[in-house]
Amino acid sequence: MATQILASGALQPLQKSQHLEVKRQTSRAVLNYGRSSLPSRLFQAKPAHSGRQQACRSAGRSTATSAVLSTEIPTIPHNGTSSSNRRVMIIGGDGYCGWATALHLSARGYAVCIVDNLVRRTYDIQLGLDTLTPIATAQKRVQKWGEISGKHIELEICDICDYEAFGEVFRSFKPDAVVHFGEQRSAPYSMIDRARAVYTQHNNVIGNINVMFAIKEFNPDCHLVKLGTMGEYGTPNIDIEEGFITITHNGRTDTLPYPKQGNSFYHLSKVHDSHNIHFATKAWKLAATDLNQGIVYGVKTEETVADPVLINRFDYDGIFGTALNRFVIQAAVGHPLTVYGKGGQTRGFLDIRDTVRCVQLAIDTPADRGEFRVFNQFTEQFSVNDIAKIVNREGDKLGLNVQVSSVPNPRVEAEEHYYNAKHSKLEELGLQPHLLGENLMESLLGFALEYKDRVDLNLIKPAVDWRTTSSASGTKTAAVARH
Amino acid sequence: MATQILASGALQPLQKSQHLEVKRQTSRAVLNYGRSSLPSRLFQAKPAHSGRQQACRSAGRSTATSAVLSTEIPTIPHNGTSSSNRRVMIIGGDGYCGWATALHLSARGYAVCIVDNLVRRTYDIQLGLDTLTPIATAQKRVQKWGEISGKHIELEICDICDYEAFGEVFRSFKPDAVVHFGEQRSAPYSMIDRARAVYTQHNNVIGNINVMFAIKEFNPDCHLVKLGTMGEYGTPNIDIEEGFITITHNGRTDTLPYPKQGNSFYHLSKVHDSHNIHFATKAWKLAATDLNQGIVYGVKTEETVADPVLINRFDYDGIFGTALNRFVIQAAVGHPLTVYGKGGQTRGFLDIRDTVRCVQLAIDTPADRGEFRVFNQFTEQFSVNDIAKIVNREGDKLGLNVQVSSVPNPRVEAEEHYYNAKHSKLEELGLQPHLLGENLMESLLGFALEYKDRVDLNLIKPAVDWRTTSSASGTKTAAVARH
Repeated sequence: MATQILASGALQPLQKSQHLEVKRQTSRAVLNYGRSSLPSRLFQAKPAHSGRQQACRSAGRSTATSAVLSTEIPTIPHNGTSSSNRRVMIIGGDGYCGWATALHLSARGYAVCIVDNLVRRTYDIQLGLDTLTPIATAQKRVQKWGEISGKHIELEICDICDYEAFGEVFRSFKPDAVVHFGEQRSAPYSMIDRARAVYTQHNNVIGNINVMFAIKEFNPDCHLVKLGTMGEYGTPNIDIEEGFITITHNGRTDTLPYPKQGNSFYHLSKVHDSHNIHFATKAWKLAATDLNQGIVYGVKTEETVADPVLINRFDYDGIFGTALNRFVIQAAVGHPLTVYGKGGQTRGFLDIRDTVRCVQLAIDTPADRGEFRVFNQFTEQFSVNDIAKIVNREGDKLGLNVQVSSVPNPRVEAEEHYYNAKHSKLEELGLQPHLLGENLMESLLGFALEYKDRVDLNLIKPAVDWRTTSSASGTKTAAVARH
Repeated sequence: MATQILASGALQPLQKSQHLEVKRQTSRAVLNYGRSSLPSRLFQAKPAHSGRQQACRSAGRSTATSAVLSTEIPTIPHNGTSSSNRRVMIIGGDGYCGWATALHLSARGYAVCIVDNLVRRTYDIQLGLDTLTPIATAQKRVQKWGEISGKHIELEICDICDYEAFGEVFRSFKPDAVVHFGEQRSAPYSMIDRARAVYTQHNNVIGNINVMFAIKEFNPDCHLVKLGTMGEYGTPNIDIEEGFITITHNGRTDTLPYPKQGNSFYHLSKVHDSHNIHFATKAWKLAATDLNQGIVYGVKTEETVADPVLINRFDYDGIFGTALNRFVIQAAVGHPLTVYGKGGQTRGFLDIRDTVRCVQLAIDTPADRGEFRVFNQFTEQFSVNDIAKIVNREGDKLGLNVQVSSVPNPRVEAEEHYYNAKHSKLEELGLQPHLLGENLMESLLGFALEYKDRVDLNLIKPAVDWRTTSSASGTKTAAVARH
């Protein structure tokens, strides 16, 4: 059923007359997805402007347009700390975090452009994987969102490693902020074989360099909000700070980038990105926020549950799935939870409803020109054993009789270690976390039970061994491809 | 004049009968440079072996072959701390440091294979640059070396980014150690334009990943000796340690990778390499030594001065030249020394005669499997102003009347800063440094004066501005290409 989004952020069904009106109005927008022409917008004028200051002025000019339409579809007030109608490009906006973020920001009045080459879907095809939840095509997603919300999301199918194409999109959309999710984001994928290790580092590092060059060339005031990972830090035996650490050594003191120890070619690609971005903030005075994100869980946000066509992905396979997602699926289908090794591996976690809010907070309070700002983006830390206990406890409440077993760890990682990572900066900006223990059923287990007929248990087995990565193609052993 | 190398390392002219004999014996070797077939060797048998232990055995077997030839050309005893005849692959062996190292090791009984795609020479062609000293082709270099020394250096023209080709070379040569100089090594080159920034990071990072995969797959006992740079550390306000720093923080202590702050896309590429190698030593138990090298100066080594065909390059242009090389050329031709900005930029330096010795020390005392060993490879530290003073002083002795001027700094870097970098590990292994103040005439100024008719002053100007790097082709403003 189509719904509308109220100022409160809650979704309610549209009245029939509203629905028809919205469909008519969005028809122009949903017909032009490609790169060749940029769709006109329903809510935002597209003035020629450059720089943050001009962008703010353009937001003011577009208010009149919004007002005309507000009798049919209420314009959603901006929940953040600054004025809305910022132009936000979301690279990787068809992916798990990117899609939720695009909807979240669109619902709150930001002008959103998704830039995505849709290669995440290709990974699944090539490896025989599938999301638990049946996701619509990117094109149908933005079409449905337009119908439901009256908000237009621009969709550009574009590979950011192709600078000519990306530059064209960037110049056309004129973003005030770029949120960069558009990287290969699986550690096991990067360890399948040499070709995928190389692909991951090339795709991620070069793509990010291109984004930095586009900002430098076309709008140096544009704020880069880059998704990093808590995995960049590894598991040091001291507290993990947010990006930088003050070191006193031989009687002198300096605040330096926190030492990095990525444990896969994927994690390392984000380490490389962080170093490159830090340099660009110094050499070119770019404004950048590096969000070192923890493990994200949860299917639902206010927007993704508005219609089945908007549903987000739920990856539970051995390549893209997390331990938490795997456990939830195993609990739903009556399979013992498979803990890798001793289970003491501890990481930061957050609900996807907090991911989208964190990104918004970063956009609303941008880094200064020349500033390399790092936030640790997670809300709670758990060991694998902790996660197994929570799933066990919540499963028991539903009578699922959850068992736990240990399997050999396919990764090379510390299985018992100190872990204490700071994460106060986003909370200081206003983040109010959702907590896993209270939300497991709502955020994950409910979906696992609803879609459990779609579960392919072959996908859950460990698919990639860190020790055996080689130049030979690894797809035969990765996930279902081995069958 | 052809020379021979004595056990002492000094070069003396060959007797005529020796010379003829050597030429006859090396004729087979110099005919096959390409990838398609591997040349037979004069001094080393090529037994089927894998792993360090087997390689040592094969070295024993080849002694008989050497003994036959030792009446014509004495086999140079190995100066290091362990047995000789190690099989050493030198990636980038046609470059400035690589060529000197290849000769140094070959002269001392190591079986040497140069792997190089010769792209360094292409950079010069494309940008209109040239080395002060006229260098011979790679093919003529190894041919002449064979004639003079009776030692065969294998030359494989191969791009390590082409894993299929590189893997074939690696499997054929079966190195016990790989010395990896094979990267784009100029900071200004990496800042010419977007394409060269991308090229530098792709070429360096992916090439190094390929080297790691080849070692892992074909001989995990092979010792990776990787050339990093002191520039990886940037200019922190605390002492720079050798690779790692022990940090006590909130009551806990850990020894972590030293924080990195590269100040160009080139320096950052080496930062990325270091992180990737560190990971490979943990995940795959590779044995790796990262040589964070300072600024290398000097043209001569014992071997490169043996014949004009063996002469090494001397880069003084704005892209590949160092401030020291530029100053020496300026002194030779009566141009004021051009100090970038305030001249307080302080870096580590070493004579190329120490570079080759450092690499040998690293090979002779290899890292253990699983060890990521980092040496800071320099012997003295100077500011740009210090360097100008030394050139001024030494130039005065020759009546050169050296002037100094300041020009706007095209780089983004601290021009006045604390700098104290440790460099004791190589000296603990036996390095006895050459010092710049005592050797400037012999190592550099003599060559500058000898070849000053070849100087093109247009090449000396600052050619690349860090602040203006863009996606537009930068070759029009780089060095002579702008004329």
